[in-house]
Amino acid sequence: MRERRIRMTNKELMKEIKENMAPIAKEDKKMEVGKEPEKETLKIIPLGGLEQIGMNITAYMYGDSIIVVDCGLAFPEDDMLGIDLVIPDVTFLKDNIDKVKGFVITHGHEDHIGSLPYILREINVPVYSTRLTNGIIENKLKEHNLLKTTKRKVIKYGQSVNLGCFRIEFIRVNHSIADAAALAIFTPVGTVIQTGDFKVDYTPVYGDTIDLQRFAELGKKGVLALLCDSTNVERPGYTMSERTVGKTMDSIFSDNPNSRIIVATFASNVDRVQQIINSAVKYNRKVVIEGRSMVNIVTTAKELGYITVPDNVLIDIENMKNYTDEQLVLITTGSQGESMAALSRMAASIHKKVSIKPGDTVIFSSNPIPGNEKQVSKVINELSMQGAKVIFQDVHVSGHACQEEIKLMYALTKPKYAIPVHGEYRHLICHAQLAQTMGIPKENIFLLSSGDVLSISDEKAEVVDSVPAQGILVDGLGVGDVGNIVLRDRQHLSENGLIIVVLTLEKYSNQLLAGPDIVSRGFVYVRESENLMEEAREVVYEAVEKCLSRNSSDWGRIKNEIKDSLSDYLWKKMKRNPMILPIIMEV
Amino acid sequence: MRERRIRMTNKELMKEIKENMAPIAKEDKKMEVGKEPEKETLKIIPLGGLEQIGMNITAYMYGDSIIVVDCGLAFPEDDMLGIDLVIPDVTFLKDNIDKVKGFVITHGHEDHIGSLPYILREINVPVYSTRLTNGIIENKLKEHNLLKTTKRKVIKYGQSVNLGCFRIEFIRVNHSIADAAALAIFTPVGTVIQTGDFKVDYTPVYGDTIDLQRFAELGKKGVLALLCDSTNVERPGYTMSERTVGKTMDSIFSDNPNSRIIVATFASNVDRVQQIINSAVKYNRKVVIEGRSMVNIVTTAKELGYITVPDNVLIDIENMKNYTDEQLVLITTGSQGESMAALSRMAASIHKKVSIKPGDTVIFSSNPIPGNEKQVSKVINELSMQGAKVIFQDVHVSGHACQEEIKLMYALTKPKYAIPVHGEYRHLICHAQLAQTMGIPKENIFLLSSGDVLSISDEKAEVVDSVPAQGILVDGLGVGDVGNIVLRDRQHLSENGLIIVVLTLEKYSNQLLAGPDIVSRGFVYVRESENLMEEAREVVYEAVEKCLSRNSSDWGRIKNEIKDSLSDYLWKKMKRNPMILPIIMEV
Repeated sequence: MRERRIRMTNKELMKEIKENMAPIAKEDKKMEVGKEPEKETLKIIPLGGLEQIGMNITAYMYGDSIIVVDCGLAFPEDDMLGIDLVIPDVTFLKDNIDKVKGFVITHGHEDHIGSLPYILREINVPVYSTRLTNGIIENKLKEHNLLKTTKRKVIKYGQSVNLGCFRIEFIRVNHSIADAAALAIFTPVGTVIQTGDFKVDYTPVYGDTIDLQRFAELGKKGVLALLCDSTNVERPGYTMSERTVGKTMDSIFSDNPNSRIIVATFASNVDRVQQIINSAVKYNRKVVIEGRSMVNIVTTAKELGYITVPDNVLIDIENMKNYTDEQLVLITTGSQGESMAALSRMAASIHKKVSIKPGDTVIFSSNPIPGNEKQVSKVINELSMQGAKVIFQDVHVSGHACQEEIKLMYALTKPKYAIPVHGEYRHLICHAQLAQTMGIPKENIFLLSSGDVLSISDEKAEVVDSVPAQGILVDGLGVGDVGNIVLRDRQHLSENGLIIVVLTLEKYSNQLLAGPDIVSRGFVYVRESENLMEEAREVVYEAVEKCLSRNSSDWGRIKNEIKDSLSDYLWKKMKRNPMILPIIMEV
Repeated sequence: MRERRIRMTNKELMKEIKENMAPIAKEDKKMEVGKEPEKETLKIIPLGGLEQIGMNITAYMYGDSIIVVDCGLAFPEDDMLGIDLVIPDVTFLKDNIDKVKGFVITHGHEDHIGSLPYILREINVPVYSTRLTNGIIENKLKEHNLLKTTKRKVIKYGQSVNLGCFRIEFIRVNHSIADAAALAIFTPVGTVIQTGDFKVDYTPVYGDTIDLQRFAELGKKGVLALLCDSTNVERPGYTMSERTVGKTMDSIFSDNPNSRIIVATFASNVDRVQQIINSAVKYNRKVVIEGRSMVNIVTTAKELGYITVPDNVLIDIENMKNYTDEQLVLITTGSQGESMAALSRMAASIHKKVSIKPGDTVIFSSNPIPGNEKQVSKVINELSMQGAKVIFQDVHVSGHACQEEIKLMYALTKPKYAIPVHGEYRHLICHAQLAQTMGIPKENIFLLSSGDVLSISDEKAEVVDSVPAQGILVDGLGVGDVGNIVLRDRQHLSENGLIIVVLTLEKYSNQLLAGPDIVSRGFVYVRESENLMEEAREVVYEAVEKCLSRNSSDWGRIKNEIKDSLSDYLWKKMKRNPMILPIIMEV
């Protein structure tokens, strides 16, 4: 089966290659005859990215055509208290809705597809992607009740799609999810390559090695710009092959024949799951899949043929009781210590169906993503306390290219312009330095901020404008109704708590009828601080009386007096600064 | 000078060794003649540690004598919102105040001395430590106005101090701060060794290699228990010598002759600072010391002779303007990305005296402590954006022993009981496994929780009791007035914000005189949500009217009705769950 699929793809690829040559040649000719270049330039506009790491979404505009590459979401930064996720501001796309031809998706990770359900409601255009990516997107659209209203099209490696004046070809790359693609975007001013997330894996678990020949061929013909993955640009050397993890997994299975084995990994790493299943089959174990996203993706990948499981290997979690520990493997979510994921619930003894017990071997087939170190460590501690043996070192390889692979990409494509993408500023600047060592002149390298409009032609490239591209915060069902003021309040409340002062005044006479009463939350133990609260009430009472005796009926002024006096008192007394909220009622 | 100091110490050491032999021999004899063992046992009681990482404080009790090893503080966990630091609960010491003979301190890091200013107010006993450690403690006591009321004594390596029935000998170890000591605690039931934080450095920058001979000698005579550092127990091999960093530093200086160089490191790593100064001298640069704790510790270390600086090398920050970039090195705090530290303020362009500029080379001579990765990355990004070259890889070595060094400690001391300390549970369990490979029987290894009372004699060891040992939260000047309820409220407020409902009722008649008014903070943008708030007011109004129409004057019930109805409404409408605070006034 696999053999045949690959041959098919190669054939198609050859067909596509021939097709591709025409427009490029035309483009070349235009340049050759020395005509005045058209005034129109290509605009490349990242609508997320540098300022919202993970929110990968890039608009390409030429004349009346816009295409959008990827539509990812960002997870909230530490100071975005209570926020669930961050999605892109697509005002620019809405303002140009008639030009937008479609979304072209490189692969099925959340940081490349996660915002689709939010954005498609406003920008309802077709979505183009490879088969597994499309399967994962369909799951997502189903959940959001958008499957029927969204046009989707599956594109094979080597195939192209024409959208307005653009033609976009999908090129095979390796990554930590199957069916990842780079995009060659053929535009009237030249060919742009966006690598998406990639690595070079000469011995991939599923499918073929990244299509280096195609990158070379495009490079030979002339690449205008390269938008290349920066994630691992600080790491020298090469990223190891995914297949090496399979060997490690085998040796762990072999070393722990009497344990129940639990493996946590990224749900979307279908090749990793395949290798765990391979080890299970080799060592005669049944496999339980646990965790919602793991079950979803494994189901989709199995249906589409990206995972092969012999009959009677997968069992339902309910049937675990029919097997002994040494006959079982659980593959589960929670490798990042996410508090609600299956493994974290097992570790905290709140999982309904699995209790960790002495003798279990738990494998983290993952590295903590920066920022998750402490929560991962917490889960490791909890698992250890339950008596499990925890293995968390060297059972993972990255899905992103290291320095030598990025250099290879530059050597093959030899772009005129380099636009490092997919990283924090430290990564982009490191990537820019690497691009220079590969011969790209400094002035041809662009580190774009979200919203920058890069105007690009064969003659020159420059940032000419910017469009709105702040991330939009999602909190529950609310999209964009939480902003900086609300977040600042949450920060203040979280660090210092709150004191509410209420009082009732008589209309006209401005006599104090009730209060001031003081209510606090998140400030101090009230019981142990009765004296403090009584003194605080006195302070407020005096401030109010002072105002009223001066016949001041300006509520704003009374409120300010209350705030100032109470705030002074608390700072002097205990060096604290709670939020103070005076509320005045009138009867 | 240095030569002489070492000889002195060796001499003293020999004297001490002879003295030591007496009590041990006596103890041995007692065992030999087969007498009934005394009922009294040694109690080892960690009052912080496993549950509050960093809060190193261990009480040793025998009969009427208690000594306390170290008195550290813990930094707040992520869920301790608004908390400044965590100090130990010393109820046990207060309850036995007459027995407490003194604090014996291993070294001058915050996690070993930071709580002293808080605890000495209640437990005013002498503090014993080596010279630099004492200097750092004195700085701290000065700040807290406790210098006059606290007895202190400087102990040299090889010297002992008698406290009640204990004799405590200070043994030289290597660590990331000079003058670090392990303690040999001679007790009536045998010798206990507490390593403190240590590594084995054969080529230390200042002073000698860890006193391996003394550990061997004690081991030969018989060690009852070993409390050994677990920080790096998950790392195979050996920790590199501090001196290797000096070589790296030299080569960075040599590679960047035209840059101003800024080095961030841990203030307390006096040897690191010495090496940076050495490189500065070698490459003809002047040195500016910046950041409050850096200035404090360098001043103390210079005064006490732990740092040697040629004349005219240190310059004041105000005089920087008299030198060119290539003549300058800044040594600064902020290597962990702490938001208020000097380097972070430079990176954010809010430092009053130093502005980062293109051409600067900034070196992080540190690794991020787990949990600090993101804030360090933020500072690296900001520095890069200002145009600085940032070097952050491999300019640091750890101060803690790796597996082979820990094994060496076991091989030298051959303790009967192993008590792994200074680590999370994952580290302690890994240490326990390592101790087993070194021949300690499983039943002789104890992983103690904070507050556990380990009763120990030559015949047996067991946990017999526990004493209070929750960490006490410090918020501003408040010590212990913030606890779980307050923290839960802060968490709730930080994630969901707050809605306050106020209304005024008429006494007796229970008529609604004013309100219900709704005030929110940290919930939504009020301006954009006017309709929502109006609807919410309606919901509350109906709930109140329903109660009042039923003549219910039970305020608790009215408040509950308000909470339930509003909470239902908001969850259905927007899947959010703000804190709802109904306040009723009566006139």
